[in-house]
Amino acid sequence: MTAPAPRTGVCAPEGFRAAGVTAGLKASGTPDVALVVNTGPDFSAAGVLTGNRVTAAPVRWCRAVLPAGRLAAVVLNSGGANACTGAAGYADTVATAERVAGLVGVAPDEVAVASTGLIGERLPMAALLAGCDAAAAALSPDGGAAAARAIMTTDTVPKTASVTENGWTVGGMAKGAGMLAPGLATMLVVLTTDAVADAAVLDSALRAATRVTFDRIDSDGATSTNDTVLLLSSGASGVRPDPVALTAVVTRVCTDLAGQLIADAEGATKEIEIEVVHAVTEDDAVTVGRAVARNNLVKTAFFGQDPNWGRILAAVGTVDASVAFDPDQVDVAVNGVWICRGGATGDDRSAVDLTPRRAHVVIDLHAGTETATVRTNDLSHAYVHENSAYST
Amino acid sequence: MTAPAPRTGVCAPEGFRAAGVTAGLKASGTPDVALVVNTGPDFSAAGVLTGNRVTAAPVRWCRAVLPAGRLAAVVLNSGGANACTGAAGYADTVATAERVAGLVGVAPDEVAVASTGLIGERLPMAALLAGCDAAAAALSPDGGAAAARAIMTTDTVPKTASVTENGWTVGGMAKGAGMLAPGLATMLVVLTTDAVADAAVLDSALRAATRVTFDRIDSDGATSTNDTVLLLSSGASGVRPDPVALTAVVTRVCTDLAGQLIADAEGATKEIEIEVVHAVTEDDAVTVGRAVARNNLVKTAFFGQDPNWGRILAAVGTVDASVAFDPDQVDVAVNGVWICRGGATGDDRSAVDLTPRRAHVVIDLHAGTETATVRTNDLSHAYVHENSAYST
Repeated sequence: MTAPAPRTGVCAPEGFRAAGVTAGLKASGTPDVALVVNTGPDFSAAGVLTGNRVTAAPVRWCRAVLPAGRLAAVVLNSGGANACTGAAGYADTVATAERVAGLVGVAPDEVAVASTGLIGERLPMAALLAGCDAAAAALSPDGGAAAARAIMTTDTVPKTASVTENGWTVGGMAKGAGMLAPGLATMLVVLTTDAVADAAVLDSALRAATRVTFDRIDSDGATSTNDTVLLLSSGASGVRPDPVALTAVVTRVCTDLAGQLIADAEGATKEIEIEVVHAVTEDDAVTVGRAVARNNLVKTAFFGQDPNWGRILAAVGTVDASVAFDPDQVDVAVNGVWICRGGATGDDRSAVDLTPRRAHVVIDLHAGTETATVRTNDLSHAYVHENSAYST
Repeated sequence: MTAPAPRTGVCAPEGFRAAGVTAGLKASGTPDVALVVNTGPDFSAAGVLTGNRVTAAPVRWCRAVLPAGRLAAVVLNSGGANACTGAAGYADTVATAERVAGLVGVAPDEVAVASTGLIGERLPMAALLAGCDAAAAALSPDGGAAAARAIMTTDTVPKTASVTENGWTVGGMAKGAGMLAPGLATMLVVLTTDAVADAAVLDSALRAATRVTFDRIDSDGATSTNDTVLLLSSGASGVRPDPVALTAVVTRVCTDLAGQLIADAEGATKEIEIEVVHAVTEDDAVTVGRAVARNNLVKTAFFGQDPNWGRILAAVGTVDASVAFDPDQVDVAVNGVWICRGGATGDDRSAVDLTPRRAHVVIDLHAGTETATVRTNDLSHAYVHENSAYST
């Protein structure tokens, strides 16, 4: 007898079983169907879906079932996004939910569906449904790790996290290569907790957490059609935490997972943290940080280990007039050296060491008191290679 | 005696002299100072400047002198952008205008200044002012080609154009590598005409022309701190064209120059024309076209000669709700093949030939009657190389 695997990721809290199996959706032959089942006693749930106006069939399904605030299971597949597949694709998603509902013994609208992979192609339904059967048969309280592996696409490592506090736990798994992978850019996240919490409390906690974590990682600005973040509560701990405490712990888990996404971003040689300080509003700080994070000239400069503050300032200048700041007051520091002061040349740029993988940029707008940090990657040859050679 | 060079570019119209000289601003030792002088009898002028909130010293100078609607000369330098150089940098621009004013015998505020090169470094003023002297001495009605060469940075070819109609001519020169070059991304354009036109007429003609030409080429969305487009009239033809006719001819010259910019975009292997049709408003069409033009996943797909309509649709979906369209109604054609119909798989993608340098995308929103075309390039290994290896 071997020791049972530790209960990780979505299985870290009590009241959840999971599985990851290989249904043959991916040419690579690696696991591609994951199932997460809430064994209760509670089944409250919340979710945040992509802001892209072009939404995949599973996202449309989740949008339809989430308002009820109740989920008993989540079935996820890699190997196909089921996006831009029309009514037939939506029917495939419904059939998947119905299959899992029958296997788990719940109603179809208690089953969320998430998919990731190439856009524009139907899923091989026979294989997927057989995969659902296999996953249901493999469900285990120790299945968290297998489920995290089954949702990987271009990820190089599975991503799980959990935080336990005062008798209750929040766990989770994530996939996605920081938006650096083409049709595979999708970020899928399933969070679980055994805390007792109503759907409304879960919803506000999840929105507060995603706003400062997943919403602030931006590798290439290419929002996916399939992004899905779900939070399920089993209430199995019997503990009903203060909503503030719940939000704090959910945020900690999301921060951990978001960091793992950026760290695993495809083709990246740098993890860049862009901290915007002294903005009038937090939204202003995010807007400026995002403008810099998405600027190809800034991103290529970091790939070249060039502390090119001029490109950073030029990127800051592209934000519209609603963001208050005086270009002649802006300071920029790269890895601790203030190479731009008052919108002009500052300290000696040769003092900047950009050899480490992690880079830290501080942009001081000198306009207010608010701060926000946006995390991104550099733009490398590997990014171009993986996104152009990627075969459809 | 050799035959005189043809009067090209800014010297195509009557009433202009130009020169291009080597002042030693560029390590390459290639020509780097250009001078364009209007010999009258009229001196009306108009200009359009960068929308970036971080503006270079010469842009601030032009913003100050353009409202008078009168220019007698334009001095341009490559080898340094004079951006983010503070008050000292602005003083350098003023000194340059004053030097040229003295040489040409006009007032400093009748001299526009434009610079392009690295951001954040002072210009070597002794060399630049000596270059102004040399350029003034070299002024000639045959200097249009030399001036066009002197403003080149990463451009591989000088860019000039002219159109003659009913006794009057519009000419021009441009530099810029379609925003694909880092600190050197700046687009500088000087247009000249011997048509008789008031400054207000020139201004409206220039704004109408740039709106549908230079404003619709977008290689990487990285707006420069130095972008400058000027239009000077000598009135030497004695012909006062109808404003509509003037606008049409200025637009033709701008279209020609904009096409040359995209064709010479650094690192590009594809020239991509994104035509958005059946939008509710022309602005909507431009917004959608620009979202696709700036999407790195779309741009890398074209580099990989992959007709990935899913990435195009996902990019369209990133525009905000102010742009009216139904994702399930969108059709996408690449090089004549409608590979996406009704937001889903359309005709056989294998019929798409992406081997030619020119690619044509049509996005049919089925929402209205308006159309716009945005032109861009692919995202290639050479782009990453040239923008990361670029030494500051």
